[in-house]
Amino acid sequence: MSETTGNRKIAIICSKGTLDMAYPGLVLANAARQAGIDAMLFFTFWGLDMITKKKLSKMKVTPVGNPAMGMPNIVGVIPGMTMMATSMMKKKIEAIDIPPIDEFIEMVHDAGVKLYGCRMSVDMMGLTEDDLIPQLEGVITAMDFMDLSEGAQTIFV
Amino acid sequence: MSETTGNRKIAIICSKGTLDMAYPGLVLANAARQAGIDAMLFFTFWGLDMITKKKLSKMKVTPVGNPAMGMPNIVGVIPGMTMMATSMMKKKIEAIDIPPIDEFIEMVHDAGVKLYGCRMSVDMMGLTEDDLIPQLEGVITAMDFMDLSEGAQTIFV
Amino acid sequence: MSETTGNRKIAIICSKGTLDMAYPGLVLANAARQAGIDAMLFFTFWGLDMITKKKLSKMKVTPVGNPAMGMPNIVGVIPGMTMMATSMMKKKIEAIDIPPIDEFIEMVHDAGVKLYGCRMSVDMMGLTEDDLIPQLEGVITAMDFMDLSEGAQTIFV
Repeated sequence: MSETTGNRKIAIICSKGTLDMAYPGLVLANAARQAGIDAMLFFTFWGLDMITKKKLSKMKVTPVGNPAMGMPNIVGVIPGMTMMATSMMKKKIEAIDIPPIDEFIEMVHDAGVKLYGCRMSVDMMGLTEDDLIPQLEGVITAMDFMDLSEGAQTIFV
Repeated sequence: MSETTGNRKIAIICSKGTLDMAYPGLVLANAARQAGIDAMLFFTFWGLDMITKKKLSKMKVTPVGNPAMGMPNIVGVIPGMTMMATSMMKKKIEAIDIPPIDEFIEMVHDAGVKLYGCRMSVDMMGLTEDDLIPQLEGVITAMDFMDLSEGAQTIFV
Repeated sequence: MSETTGNRKIAIICSKGTLDMAYPGLVLANAARQAGIDAMLFFTFWGLDMITKKKLSKMKVTPVGNPAMGMPNIVGVIPGMTMMATSMMKKKIEAIDIPPIDEFIEMVHDAGVKLYGCRMSVDMMGLTEDDLIPQLEGVITAMDFMDLSEGAQTIFV
């Protein structure tokens, strides 16, 4: 992170593979860079989908198990309802000029956010580095994360 | 946050709209104030329900997708089960003298916790400031959050 | 935490009762200790299952409400699907030499991670200290957590 000037740092762990929980990490990392703060994103567990080529444009939001969406669980399990909820959320996000996940990832990368995959998660999902987007700095261990996040404000999404 | 004396700070992001995940942020913010620590709550995504007048007293907990509740998913989708799980949790919470969400929000506000809504989420949900509770300091951007959380321990719920 | 030398500290709050979300806190706490960092785990809400004798070896992962698992919700509610998803995840975790939750808890304890239960959650679930694993330092309040986490990087899982 040598190209940044301040030494305030934010290290964000992205662990979720749903559309709604993909955004908070990106929004915070982006705001951090705009404020001149060093920012890194560490993608682990389901969050790995956010940097997996075949998956990052297919993230969904599901109404089941999320009563805040206001849809009864019995309706939420009907085939098509996840697609409908996802489509509705994408429209709402587009309407306020927030980019889709794949563009947002590129945007934060271009803004200087460092992106890292989690070695353990990559191995667990049986992926190779070729399956991941090229914007990554690399695939690192939890111990490497400890090194890189020294002195950082840590946020686990 | 000028009325507090110490300079230890805690900035908590509330992003969930379920009853069970509404409590941790409130409990931590309350404990922080009791210990003389500056505390702020930033309500974003589904967490916005916690400060939306029409919703904060209607938060639910759902047994579906939460195997820790011990109810099979097939049972959890039966209409009424979310209501039953919510009612059970409310009773358990009341039994140990923890206030319901709306009272708890007032309590932490009175204790000096600063409450902020997330501009992006408010816009996305199509809300106006009139839809939100009066205890808010205001609706702020993620960049404002970066300013306000400088030097804070950050917690994303 | 007197036996550790450095004064970098990490305080991790474990609030989830699912198999997939039990791991991140353990992996991070373990990596912290390997890097010579003080680490504590505070188990609250559903995360209490991770330190409850009768539950910690029975944690499950559910495909419902988690579109990242790639299973439609309508399939996920079929009885047996949570068991199947749990079994698949356990195999993947074992394949990369990550221990099951109960062994992992012992491992991080032996590595010097301090384990604490949340008083409010213990009371809410109607448990006594006898229901909890012996590796705990104790059951503490959120205010005690504030004391112990002073100066720590905080992570809420």
